Amino acid sequence: MLSVEQALQLVLSNVAILDEEEKTILACLGQVLAEDVYSGINVPPLDNSAMDGYAVKYKDTAGASQESPCILEVNEVVLAGSMPKIEVKTGTATRIMTGAPIPEGADSVIQFEDTDEDNRKTASRGKNPAEIGILKTIKAGANIRRAGESVARDSLILKRGTVVRPSEIGVLASIGRSLIKVIRRPVVAILATGNEVIDIDQPLPEGKIYNSNSYSIAAQVLRYGGIPRLTGIALDNEEAIRESIRDNSDADVLITTGGVSMGDYDLIREVVAKDGEIIFWKVRTKPGKPLTFGKIRVKGKDGGEKKMPHFGLAGNPVSCMVNFEIFTRPALYKMMGRKNLSTPTIEATLEDSIRDGDGRRTFARVLVVKRGDDYFARLTGDQGSGVLTSMALANGLAIIPETSAKIEKGEKVQVMMLDWSQEL
Amino acid sequence: MLSVEQALQLVLSNVAILDEEEKTILACLGQVLAEDVYSGINVPPLDNSAMDGYAVKYKDTAGASQESPCILEVNEVVLAGSMPKIEVKTGTATRIMTGAPIPEGADSVIQFEDTDEDNRKTASRGKNPAEIGILKTIKAGANIRRAGESVARDSLILKRGTVVRPSEIGVLASIGRSLIKVIRRPVVAILATGNEVIDIDQPLPEGKIYNSNSYSIAAQVLRYGGIPRLTGIALDNEEAIRESIRDNSDADVLITTGGVSMGDYDLIREVVAKDGEIIFWKVRTKPGKPLTFGKIRVKGKDGGEKKMPHFGLAGNPVSCMVNFEIFTRPALYKMMGRKNLSTPTIEATLEDSIRDGDGRRTFARVLVVKRGDDYFARLTGDQGSGVLTSMALANGLAIIPETSAKIEKGEKVQVMMLDWSQEL
Repeated sequence: MLSVEQALQLVLSNVAILDEEEKTILACLGQVLAEDVYSGINVPPLDNSAMDGYAVKYKDTAGASQESPCILEVNEVVLAGSMPKIEVKTGTATRIMTGAPIPEGADSVIQFEDTDEDNRKTASRGKNPAEIGILKTIKAGANIRRAGESVARDSLILKRGTVVRPSEIGVLASIGRSLIKVIRRPVVAILATGNEVIDIDQPLPEGKIYNSNSYSIAAQVLRYGGIPRLTGIALDNEEAIRESIRDNSDADVLITTGGVSMGDYDLIREVVAKDGEIIFWKVRTKPGKPLTFGKIRVKGKDGGEKKMPHFGLAGNPVSCMVNFEIFTRPALYKMMGRKNLSTPTIEATLEDSIRDGDGRRTFARVLVVKRGDDYFARLTGDQGSGVLTSMALANGLAIIPETSAKIEKGEKVQVMMLDWSQEL
Repeated sequence: MLSVEQALQLVLSNVAILDEEEKTILACLGQVLAEDVYSGINVPPLDNSAMDGYAVKYKDTAGASQESPCILEVNEVVLAGSMPKIEVKTGTATRIMTGAPIPEGADSVIQFEDTDEDNRKTASRGKNPAEIGILKTIKAGANIRRAGESVARDSLILKRGTVVRPSEIGVLASIGRSLIKVIRRPVVAILATGNEVIDIDQPLPEGKIYNSNSYSIAAQVLRYGGIPRLTGIALDNEEAIRESIRDNSDADVLITTGGVSMGDYDLIREVVAKDGEIIFWKVRTKPGKPLTFGKIRVKGKDGGEKKMPHFGLAGNPVSCMVNFEIFTRPALYKMMGRKNLSTPTIEATLEDSIRDGDGRRTFARVLVVKRGDDYFARLTGDQGSGVLTSMALANGLAIIPETSAKIEKGEKVQVMMLDWSQEL
């Protein structure tokens, strides 16, 4: 049976980065840039003031102090968004607001608080003064933001492959880009199988169970940036399964749930084997051993044949979600152009013992809490693969290596973090 | 000047949890349950088989072994989704698939691998056998999943206040819930101000800058689960600002960017002071000191007066985003009904020295990497509050306490994690 690493390697080598699309920047949150972004402008575009104050020649402030102010004539007032009209000459100053362009001749800005403006305005009942007293000596360049100090014209500011986060969206806006090329999101067709499965929101006939897997998987697809497509439930016959696959041949990935274990009516593997290729069946992981991965031949958009990657996830609700986290999520991330495909892990002290011993890597559902700077992990109850509430109480999956028969309370484990909404 | 804690306390005590809405479960990802969810059914609904095998009376397997099988008569085959018709009596067995209901009279299931079915099927060219040899002694209850073992009927399975994640969506589906009550997402009106600011995707006139803040803030709102509404750019006059506020009086929060520092044309505070109440101005934080928080009186949906919380974020792009992370995000989380309002932090070793000394708490943009089990944080270049690319290179904000004049390379710091897309 394949190890987790072997299986993941096979999955990743059988999915490819998707094509590009051009979209408005806000619609790209979480996607990956498909172009190197160069700036067509300097940011800021002009030298400008970092403070509300007076633009001066710094030499004019030499020796200025509270006791012996240096008096300068005021040229004009420049607001952010306006251009200065008058050159600052020796003995003069221009009143300037934050963000306003620095006038010609000025080499520094002194803030209001270091002038006597307040006194003068009080004396003149609020009028802007015609002369200003400087109360402090300043240095050349003080309080000036240089043109291009944030972004220089023609520089590469965001590399292809960068994940678009709020800060990247801000950077793109700051250089005036409203559209950007990104790798598109994968469309993931999700098909439940089994005569026993019925859709939610109807009375439950005897012997049936509700389809929960399609919904938890769809939510995982959404959460990691894909586009889930719920395609319903196929009865346990090959033609029903085939028809559903045909109807969704435009999807980028097919996920089926159930139908991959040993029973007579576990048909998914039969269909995939006939209509494509099973790349592997069964992984040394607990829960989720019966995972199947392969490719199915379907008709592509151009009428030609394409091979659609297929994940046959185990039917048990927990196995299904864990299969997805370990194998499907990295595959979707690769398709989306992400470079880091791993889930963040932390080291935690176990507060329960976890027994295992059948040679598979165990992913135990745990609730991680932080005390001081350390993390502690506790099992979230019954680890049966049907008990989905144990997943709902968890925020991580503790990884018990296949070589460990048992991990004792108090030992350290690595935990894959699924969620940071606890106080961590 | 207020400390971060004092300011945050004021923010949180002036925003309230929003009202409820009922939605389909998949549309609720990341929202918070507004009801206690009880199960109307047992999950699984009936005792059922955990394996493909034969349902038997365990006493019939006493003494059975490879060498001396015990032979039982086969009653029928039961598939998942079907109901058994025949009672399992002493000396008989029912062939059963995973998930199929346990027939009356049976108390355990023995898996195919522990029977001689394979031999019999080979001999009969694939026909299901009329008799089956049991090769192993099993215990009462073996391989039976009990009705209600995952969820018991009438039990509380998800509490009001729970964040809806993929596992919660799965749990809701498993009990047949398609609609659920959640706290609705806040609508956040975002208004840029300043005569110097123009919208993206047009040539840049001299002296102007592109509006980046509205986009980075909108992306932050989206990222944390709110609904951003871009309301454009108001010129620096009170009437323009007022008109935009009136047009968005149905929003839950107003965020303005710029216009809150000391300049003559920083009008936001004047408008809020006249049309509402400034709760605080200025916080002991770097960057982002000029943050303003208050409430504005607007006309509510019912025609009566309501008070809309207002964040006047600093105009510098980095200050703006940091203000949002520290103060606006927790407020939105509270409005959405979340209990944990904090951002996850990790402890990292600084690889650069960070100097500070003006008594404010510094949030330095850092890139955190993991080596072994330890985290290391490095400054992402120029920490000027206008340099948004430093934010784009960062995945965390290192917190330098207001009491530290300097943190040396090699010292430990707490880092608020903004993003886990690096290998962590």
